[in-house]
Amino acid sequence: MQASIISIGDEILIGQIINTNASWMAQRLNEIGVHVYEVVTVSDTADHITQAVDQALQQADIVLLTGGLGPTKDDITKKTLADYFESGMEFHQEILDDLNAYMQKRGRPMLESVKSLALMPSKCEVIRNLKGTAAAMLFEKEGKILVSMPGVPYEMKDFMERVVLDRIKQQFNTPTILHKTIICAGQGETVLAEKIKSVTESLPPHIKMAYLPNMGIVRLRLSGSGEHGATLQAEIEDYTQQVWDILHPKYAIGYDKDKLEEIIGQILLEKKATLSTAESCTGGLVAHKITSISGSSRYFEGGAVCYSNRMKQELLGVQTSTLEQFGAVSEECVKEMAQGAVKNFNTTYGVAISGIAGPGGGTPEKPVGTVWIGVADKDRVFAKKLSFPRTRELVTAVSATMALVFLRRFMLEIV
Amino acid sequence: MQASIISIGDEILIGQIINTNASWMAQRLNEIGVHVYEVVTVSDTADHITQAVDQALQQADIVLLTGGLGPTKDDITKKTLADYFESGMEFHQEILDDLNAYMQKRGRPMLESVKSLALMPSKCEVIRNLKGTAAAMLFEKEGKILVSMPGVPYEMKDFMERVVLDRIKQQFNTPTILHKTIICAGQGETVLAEKIKSVTESLPPHIKMAYLPNMGIVRLRLSGSGEHGATLQAEIEDYTQQVWDILHPKYAIGYDKDKLEEIIGQILLEKKATLSTAESCTGGLVAHKITSISGSSRYFEGGAVCYSNRMKQELLGVQTSTLEQFGAVSEECVKEMAQGAVKNFNTTYGVAISGIAGPGGGTPEKPVGTVWIGVADKDRVFAKKLSFPRTRELVTAVSATMALVFLRRFMLEIV
Repeated sequence: MQASIISIGDEILIGQIINTNASWMAQRLNEIGVHVYEVVTVSDTADHITQAVDQALQQADIVLLTGGLGPTKDDITKKTLADYFESGMEFHQEILDDLNAYMQKRGRPMLESVKSLALMPSKCEVIRNLKGTAAAMLFEKEGKILVSMPGVPYEMKDFMERVVLDRIKQQFNTPTILHKTIICAGQGETVLAEKIKSVTESLPPHIKMAYLPNMGIVRLRLSGSGEHGATLQAEIEDYTQQVWDILHPKYAIGYDKDKLEEIIGQILLEKKATLSTAESCTGGLVAHKITSISGSSRYFEGGAVCYSNRMKQELLGVQTSTLEQFGAVSEECVKEMAQGAVKNFNTTYGVAISGIAGPGGGTPEKPVGTVWIGVADKDRVFAKKLSFPRTRELVTAVSATMALVFLRRFMLEIV
Repeated sequence: MQASIISIGDEILIGQIINTNASWMAQRLNEIGVHVYEVVTVSDTADHITQAVDQALQQADIVLLTGGLGPTKDDITKKTLADYFESGMEFHQEILDDLNAYMQKRGRPMLESVKSLALMPSKCEVIRNLKGTAAAMLFEKEGKILVSMPGVPYEMKDFMERVVLDRIKQQFNTPTILHKTIICAGQGETVLAEKIKSVTESLPPHIKMAYLPNMGIVRLRLSGSGEHGATLQAEIEDYTQQVWDILHPKYAIGYDKDKLEEIIGQILLEKKATLSTAESCTGGLVAHKITSISGSSRYFEGGAVCYSNRMKQELLGVQTSTLEQFGAVSEECVKEMAQGAVKNFNTTYGVAISGIAGPGGGTPEKPVGTVWIGVADKDRVFAKKLSFPRTRELVTAVSATMALVFLRRFMLEIV
């Protein structure tokens, strides 16, 4: 089973945006056993789109297009595909109803240019857009399918997850492919690989292990393919358990789609505990991660972003003498910040971060990337220093993740 | 002048990595007036590489390949290109010397597989690798050039900047291509397009306008190509000014790489003013955006993430009666939050957000996506309601951007 992905858009060809859609789609296709033969990015022109579609249909059973749809895009893709499939156009009242509802909900006027979105090729199957304006089109030709979707990432993802992936599974006889992912936090892939070497070296050829590191989190993905679903499932589960037994509880924190911030929430709920944050260099990113979980109001009270020393003193009760003697980026300060959060915000746990995100502000003793993380409850306090000399963005992102890593270990008493 | 980019690598086709190389290369090529016709990602196989190269050379004057080189890749690209250009192989002592020096510097042994890197097609011009191991190859054929480089981003960038871009400029009579982007905030592309219709409809064929929307920000990009750099520059500047005059100050906020959070910082610095935040549903995202700018400590004092009502009362002084009568997601509450930030955190401006990010917590009167934004200084206070029923992630992301949009307008007194 082969697929081709065609991304339409001058903004990719001039390098203004990075084609993240294609890799997301490729990943999802691979997960259901579809091999991506080629990814092609072409310009917003009828000739180029036609040529790419024609060629893709020669090689692939499934062709997925993104981009070049919508009122400001001149609907070039829609017209080109209608011509390619020798189709007339047809007005769809249900699309116009969707568009009216969409505009009304947002208090926006209905423009003529938007109305044109209700006109679709009569030979295609229309897939309604539940997240935006331009509907998707599904064409079938000689047992092959071609789907054209808008290029807006969350719209494309909704089309894929709601309709397209299932349709591919139904229409094509895809092999059984199973994945199980173990989420690890706070340790690099090299060390993790060494620890689980005994397991990975014993894997049979039809089961593979991939390491997917990203900002302090490493996902270990076991993938297997086979004929017998149940046997494969049992095998994958067995190897997963072996890896888990080695890496849990310190490094392995969960499975598949589990998120560190979600796991933190579960622990807090189980303990009937509450949390507050005290952030300096991460500027609110830790709180934002925690509150990205729906229902976090049950355990997260809030926190302080104390960028200035004055705020650290006023909101968190950090001592003037601490700031003078050790500075804001120090074990002493970060411990007082965490303890101050517990006390002033009246929560079970407090987590604090203070560091030098750069590019300015570094010194020989405390270079850019020096970050202190503190965690406290009313009886205990813990602090840990990170040294991670990277860009401002990377320093803050990894620090925020590591703050949650140490918070989890502190709560489980395995720091 | 047309270029084609070919990325070789299964890791892109299975979605494990995002093709950032291609967009970086496209951007640099566009800057020197080379139009990127197509970006193609193919697998590590001789057939697929040959087919892609053959086709690219039919369309483009310049073909740039990345990936598929090096000892662990089996040097598949090198062999394939040697065959394609009907070339024998030739040993290069200077490459072996480079490799020896590279390995010695890192204390690594010289493996047989690495030595094979010194064998290169005799019909190519070899470009030494100063950042890694595999050298690049430059082939010429009927006035066209093909360059094959390793896929490691910093190695590829070094080849491009040290040799390839200059070579293209020398060899081809590249036209001038100019871009100018106007950054707009707080209004959708459809309405913006309608407002500047008079300008876009008057654009000559060699100047184009693109709309690039992303989370409350729309970038309007004017691109022109021509023979005379100065004339084109003047034309682009004229159209840019026309668009700017229509959309500034309310919607157009800056140019090119300007960021909203940076513009906020500039306004605060000019006014010698300070800022604090009071966030509920965005959970720290506004503060994180502001502190993503290096040097933000000059105007950003900090803020509160007040997820619970208790924190809103204790840290921001929101009245119990306000919460009881109007609720936390209300004009009254968000105004008190913004004013509380100004007063309690002792800053010139305060910005506040309270809303229902979902997926739970909505009511018929206040459905998911209802978000109130408040901005205050010591004399004035402003509040605005958003209705943006999307995912939790989108609601918070767009709310954070819109909070900055209204903060900017409030500071400029154009709300």
